[in-house]
Amino acid sequence: MVQSRQVHLVRRPNGMPVPEDFAIATVDTPDAGEGQVQLQAVLVSVDPYMRPRLDADQPLGQPLLGGGIARVVQSAHPDFAKGDLVMHRAGMQERFVADPRHLRKLTPDPDLPLSVYMHALGGTGITAYGGLLEVGALKDGEQVFVSTAAGAVGSVVAQIAKLKGCYVVGSTGSEAKAAWLRDELGLDAVINYQAEPIGPALKAATPNGIDVYFENVGGAHLDAALPRMNNRGRIPVCGMISTYNGEREGVRNLSTVIYSRIRIEGFVGGDFPHLQAQFVEDMTGWLKSGRIKTQETILDGFERAPEGLIGLFHGRNLGKMLIRAAD
Amino acid sequence: MVQSRQVHLVRRPNGMPVPEDFAIATVDTPDAGEGQVQLQAVLVSVDPYMRPRLDADQPLGQPLLGGGIARVVQSAHPDFAKGDLVMHRAGMQERFVADPRHLRKLTPDPDLPLSVYMHALGGTGITAYGGLLEVGALKDGEQVFVSTAAGAVGSVVAQIAKLKGCYVVGSTGSEAKAAWLRDELGLDAVINYQAEPIGPALKAATPNGIDVYFENVGGAHLDAALPRMNNRGRIPVCGMISTYNGEREGVRNLSTVIYSRIRIEGFVGGDFPHLQAQFVEDMTGWLKSGRIKTQETILDGFERAPEGLIGLFHGRNLGKMLIRAAD
Repeated sequence: MVQSRQVHLVRRPNGMPVPEDFAIATVDTPDAGEGQVQLQAVLVSVDPYMRPRLDADQPLGQPLLGGGIARVVQSAHPDFAKGDLVMHRAGMQERFVADPRHLRKLTPDPDLPLSVYMHALGGTGITAYGGLLEVGALKDGEQVFVSTAAGAVGSVVAQIAKLKGCYVVGSTGSEAKAAWLRDELGLDAVINYQAEPIGPALKAATPNGIDVYFENVGGAHLDAALPRMNNRGRIPVCGMISTYNGEREGVRNLSTVIYSRIRIEGFVGGDFPHLQAQFVEDMTGWLKSGRIKTQETILDGFERAPEGLIGLFHGRNLGKMLIRAAD
Repeated sequence: MVQSRQVHLVRRPNGMPVPEDFAIATVDTPDAGEGQVQLQAVLVSVDPYMRPRLDADQPLGQPLLGGGIARVVQSAHPDFAKGDLVMHRAGMQERFVADPRHLRKLTPDPDLPLSVYMHALGGTGITAYGGLLEVGALKDGEQVFVSTAAGAVGSVVAQIAKLKGCYVVGSTGSEAKAAWLRDELGLDAVINYQAEPIGPALKAATPNGIDVYFENVGGAHLDAALPRMNNRGRIPVCGMISTYNGEREGVRNLSTVIYSRIRIEGFVGGDFPHLQAQFVEDMTGWLKSGRIKTQETILDGFERAPEGLIGLFHGRNLGKMLIRAAD
């Protein structure tokens, strides 16, 4: 029997989550039973989508719902050997027993860092890919606006759009992130919404309107984008991070959807299993050729998962935020 | 040379339109030139969609943009004879010369009142039909919510949904309208939003959620509907009348679109030429068999068009609002 730590939600956040909303619990982990494996967390993902669940289906006193990469430390299943890597959705646990039916074995490409499987080649990547190309129905050369373009999903969206020959405008919340988007990713225009009001800035940056607005923010961003949408424009809605912590500005420009025939459509990363094979092929190629660049903010130490999650809502990440629980 | 009256916009409304925003102008009407016809307005349509145009592309000192049914009083075109009826989009004019290329000759069905061509068999009907069946992708037996269900478009939407075996909830703003929806149209539940808050009332009326919300109102109605939407629910947006006169409540529940994969999509009645033939066949049959019932509020006298238009925003119409300019 070994001990394990878990990240628990101990009370529902009141607006912005604070460290006291979480606790690190220590529990006993049994040995792997017949047909099971015991796992050690390696990388833990923290994502904006977790915030709404803290108010809803996340149980108190249980591991935070989520996923990550783990290593097999004990196996009582013929298909898994000690040292194998797996992707799991078992929540924020450091050491735990799992049924392999809920795991996906990971054979990392030796030319890519392991972390990309939590990012551009994982849930983040398929969310960007499916959201932009299928829900957003992006056509080559269109006018694209991406909010939180320096975030995990946003930065992949912006780069896919550039690959497709689009004119791409991104918004972000700091000058350092704006510089990365402009200088490293080659966006056509970047708006630092902390430095200037989003409405006039977006108008100036989109002289030919917007065909696809990839929505991660909501609120004032959406109100700024709606009047800029071209006829039959699409707004795939991946997130509305501005609304998650109680600052729920109402959206006032929705009636523009009528005459511009705008389509606003929500989705989650899990909606695209039919795109998975093509996504992996495309994204692996783009990553290896350097046409898609990734950024990560990695916090070392399993116990820092609450800090990482909270940090997302303060914009403390550049690119994908991850927790390293073990090497 | 005869004289004609026109309804002009003389200043942009400040919020709710008032009579002083409009004027009745008298102008000379020339005779029909070679290939032209001279027309006498018979029925003039007033519609909620006209309100946003008063702030935008409606020129001052010109006939209000719109359409109606007119009778040929002079013809210099071989295909048109005196007495023929036509549909036109020449705006609010009493007597005017037109080029037949911009007219559609109307051969009314003798078993139906002429006014249905301004209503269930006209722009109102195709808006309801295309918006519900194509944009809303309605399936038989689904859960449907229609706002302003006693209005011109709403009442047709509600009845088509009932014909398709759906559970239909409607909202309206008076007890008399609620009674008509319940007793005459057979809706499953009716909410008088002037008598009770829309949020709790809609929750109680939709125990199985909502698959299609046909949106005519916006604001608080949309905020009430969003949390009730089922997975992959659709919100065809026909209008947002609550936002047209300056009372722009912000919409706060938009983030529900993400996890429920809701699609919100704007459209206008002119988007469905490909459905026109099927629509006319279906709707003619439904009207003759009494399966679709129509209500009209008709004001007599061309000069009452501003009163009719303003009345729409005070809920003074039951069903379609029309102006009778001549018998």
